[in-house]
Amino acid sequence: MRHLVLTMSCPDACGIISAVSGFLADHGGWIDEASYHSDPSTQWFFMRQAIRADSLDFPQDAFSDLFSPIADRFGIKWRIWDTGQKKRVVVLASREDHCVNELIHRASTGDGPFEIVSILSNHENLRSFVEWNRIPFHYLPVDSQSPQDHFSEIARLFLEYKGDVMVLARYMRILPESICTRFSGRILNIHHSFLPSFAGASPYRQAFLRGVKLIGATCHYVTAELDAGPIIEQDVIRIDHGDSPEEMARLGRDIEKLVLARGLRYHVEDRVLVHDNRTIVFH
Amino acid sequence: MRHLVLTMSCPDACGIISAVSGFLADHGGWIDEASYHSDPSTQWFFMRQAIRADSLDFPQDAFSDLFSPIADRFGIKWRIWDTGQKKRVVVLASREDHCVNELIHRASTGDGPFEIVSILSNHENLRSFVEWNRIPFHYLPVDSQSPQDHFSEIARLFLEYKGDVMVLARYMRILPESICTRFSGRILNIHHSFLPSFAGASPYRQAFLRGVKLIGATCHYVTAELDAGPIIEQDVIRIDHGDSPEEMARLGRDIEKLVLARGLRYHVEDRVLVHDNRTIVFH
Amino acid sequence: MRHLVLTMSCPDACGIISAVSGFLADHGGWIDEASYHSDPSTQWFFMRQAIRADSLDFPQDAFSDLFSPIADRFGIKWRIWDTGQKKRVVVLASREDHCVNELIHRASTGDGPFEIVSILSNHENLRSFVEWNRIPFHYLPVDSQSPQDHFSEIARLFLEYKGDVMVLARYMRILPESICTRFSGRILNIHHSFLPSFAGASPYRQAFLRGVKLIGATCHYVTAELDAGPIIEQDVIRIDHGDSPEEMARLGRDIEKLVLARGLRYHVEDRVLVHDNRTIVFH
Amino acid sequence: MRHLVLTMSCPDACGIISAVSGFLADHGGWIDEASYHSDPSTQWFFMRQAIRADSLDFPQDAFSDLFSPIADRFGIKWRIWDTGQKKRVVVLASREDHCVNELIHRASTGDGPFEIVSILSNHENLRSFVEWNRIPFHYLPVDSQSPQDHFSEIARLFLEYKGDVMVLARYMRILPESICTRFSGRILNIHHSFLPSFAGASPYRQAFLRGVKLIGATCHYVTAELDAGPIIEQDVIRIDHGDSPEEMARLGRDIEKLVLARGLRYHVEDRVLVHDNRTIVFH
Repeated sequence: MRHLVLTMSCPDACGIISAVSGFLADHGGWIDEASYHSDPSTQWFFMRQAIRADSLDFPQDAFSDLFSPIADRFGIKWRIWDTGQKKRVVVLASREDHCVNELIHRASTGDGPFEIVSILSNHENLRSFVEWNRIPFHYLPVDSQSPQDHFSEIARLFLEYKGDVMVLARYMRILPESICTRFSGRILNIHHSFLPSFAGASPYRQAFLRGVKLIGATCHYVTAELDAGPIIEQDVIRIDHGDSPEEMARLGRDIEKLVLARGLRYHVEDRVLVHDNRTIVFH
Repeated sequence: MRHLVLTMSCPDACGIISAVSGFLADHGGWIDEASYHSDPSTQWFFMRQAIRADSLDFPQDAFSDLFSPIADRFGIKWRIWDTGQKKRVVVLASREDHCVNELIHRASTGDGPFEIVSILSNHENLRSFVEWNRIPFHYLPVDSQSPQDHFSEIARLFLEYKGDVMVLARYMRILPESICTRFSGRILNIHHSFLPSFAGASPYRQAFLRGVKLIGATCHYVTAELDAGPIIEQDVIRIDHGDSPEEMARLGRDIEKLVLARGLRYHVEDRVLVHDNRTIVFH
Repeated sequence: MRHLVLTMSCPDACGIISAVSGFLADHGGWIDEASYHSDPSTQWFFMRQAIRADSLDFPQDAFSDLFSPIADRFGIKWRIWDTGQKKRVVVLASREDHCVNELIHRASTGDGPFEIVSILSNHENLRSFVEWNRIPFHYLPVDSQSPQDHFSEIARLFLEYKGDVMVLARYMRILPESICTRFSGRILNIHHSFLPSFAGASPYRQAFLRGVKLIGATCHYVTAELDAGPIIEQDVIRIDHGDSPEEMARLGRDIEKLVLARGLRYHVEDRVLVHDNRTIVFH
Repeated sequence: MRHLVLTMSCPDACGIISAVSGFLADHGGWIDEASYHSDPSTQWFFMRQAIRADSLDFPQDAFSDLFSPIADRFGIKWRIWDTGQKKRVVVLASREDHCVNELIHRASTGDGPFEIVSILSNHENLRSFVEWNRIPFHYLPVDSQSPQDHFSEIARLFLEYKGDVMVLARYMRILPESICTRFSGRILNIHHSFLPSFAGASPYRQAFLRGVKLIGATCHYVTAELDAGPIIEQDVIRIDHGDSPEEMARLGRDIEKLVLARGLRYHVEDRVLVHDNRTIVFH
């Protein structure tokens, strides 16, 4: 069933739920999913509602005009998404393929409302598999003389493909601040540690040296500060003294691909709101 | 902060959230926590709201009169609970003490809005510890000639202590149907398996013989059918081939006491609604 | 590094470890991994050792002759596997592809010592993907008039491909007893529930109706009794009241494919010993 | 059944298992549990064996003399423990009582081979509960003028009580280097985060600000560097955006007490070997 998903936030106050749900009810809106959160530490209010698309008595493009009096009254920042519109995902990859394989498989089996419109990589090894799946593949080598060309090309292609989301699927390079800022809130990364532990390079080696008993993965929004953006999803698995860094990497792949897939799904279903450096994720 | 917690269910329809939240807003109600669920399989709607107690412009005992027009319009079954009123818990125990110890410790440290008003057991061994905690202890032996005396006494004491909840903390006996029915929805049990696997007696021995790789515990409402009531909470832990039934029992105690404590907390905070044989648990 | 993996079991006795490790040491055997288990309930002993292949002072085919005096003395049942020999896996599939995709990806990235030598299915939909991966695909439709033809063909192809392991990757049909018996201990199934709960068909619907709070998956050896063979690996994920059977199926796929992949890896690395209806799994 | 537990480590070499198990077998030693680990990164070998105490043909105090030729040959560092000897635990506590309650309950129900011989605290609030359990309680206030008196008293009492293990059960103070060094490998701490994340003070507040999706607890040996000693055991639980630092603290208590109890059990059962800054834990 098609839904309109209304996501919003504003300073907390008495009467917000009443005003918004009253507005929707007055127009016949049938709510199938409703989630609320008021955050006492910031006194901010967050809300997500999934409304049956055919239940409203006005066309979707009239929403803004009709809703603006309420939005103005409470200072609401909102967005609306028609679940009939799949999100367009551009994937940045490197040599490793487990995350790319997972995302392609999920896209092809309709696991979430997204399609992969292009895959960009600084290695050629994934081309054949990607193209067999009828997804355009672009090889973007990094020229040590002018590395900025690589990044310019990423930005250009993301726009050309009308990307909604950029996913760093074990891309292994640090995006320049300009890209992080320009597409803020739209770039997801999977980091192969339970952040904030072991940020930066070689997290499994760091984990081995520190002797932790669990290793993890973190899906987060990319910001200018490395591995420090808002966390969307995390998970861990147990290891023991017998696991070398290489074995951890092998085991870790299982958790990386699942955490990335979950994080992406929350994002493309408009379940994630960012406030300060934290996320509200309405499951 | 004191809250009024309004919990309700009704056939699903357009406008319920609007009507209820509009009613609350009209009376100044400030909602700190709001949870909704519509169940497509039964077309039923469930809702829980925590309203700041001092924000409403009418006294709590006027709620029923004021809310009844809305309740009647949608066929709402509702209940309200003042978080200032601790739930009165009567614990049924047997010889094992880990669950009793856990509940007493939590009650004494204010882990949830409940107090243990009495502990009843068919063994004497817990008396000293219970009484040291200033909780009345009743020894209710089971006379094989007239076992019904034991159960009559349980029912009588539960009423005498004005119990809100009866908790079977590894009580190990089967309550007669009359008690299950009389206090329906108010009796919690902890079963030491991941139900529906290994219902009945000796679940760890059953688990050992079947060779499962995880063992669990289940907190559920007691109904006349053994170990078949609505499940509130479950969890599992990993075991391996080296764990005997006795070792499983040792490991299982950790999960039993936590699952019981969580299930009880959800219940006493009015987070659980029962529909058919399933629960909606608003975390 | 190539290893010889010696796996064995026998009645428990004093001196087994000494005799076996003494034998290996006398011949220069360098042990990189050693696992032992004595089971008090059956008084049986189990052992697995990974010996560096180039450390022994005799050729591998002399092992049997040299080791037989010790084996005879303790009544040891043993097998040896050269890790240089990849296990040959024949996969039985049906329409769903997440487990097949997972296994193909793992085989192609060298996740374990196995290769997929053939995929057999009663549906055509996976052919293109399988063949693109250069794996022979056989379409084996089930003729309602003579269903035994389908099963005969499975057995014939398994032998033709010199299969070591048969994997039922959401194959959805019940193998006849003749096949179960003939290839006993070599057929793995993934069942989409936490067995013994919800054996048989539609486990997610059964789980929904029972209202469990966790769903799971089980990898087990196939025996003549449906879903009752020795369990190799299990895992679970949390669900809640909002998850329909369809949503459970979606979430369950993540755990099914991981549990199957782990179970298969334990099997092909000769980490699993079966005793009665239980497994010893040396991680 | 009483066992002698032999724990050892040495540079890896061919023939160690054979030599040690041969020695034990020659003297009639019946091995009920045997664990081995060779670490390729350091080329070091670790071993733990549980031998039935009544199976050896010599008295326990002859072990050293008889075993020393083998120990010398391989450069083995070893220790032996008679499971009939309970480890003597001195607990350091502060105001919070959930870990103390857990340990006392486990000691009293025989959950592991240890007894709590004394509890020292800089607060009086636990005295009554501790003394009711017939455990000596010492109130050791911290004088801001001479804080070293507090620590001297701890060391003095630990020796006086013949402590084997010192457990910091949410003790909340930093032990001076002199104590850490003097009782190296014998002091366990429970830290309420998933180390190395959020070392130091207020880990739940740090976790809240960073917006992690899981919180954890770590049981580790105390060394002079704060929260940086070898990790024995860790675990995590899931939280979400609705959990304040106070709620995290409440949820975290469940995981803290279990992780501490597990870590302590591994330690008192001589399952932990330390190498560099990492532990080998033979479950």
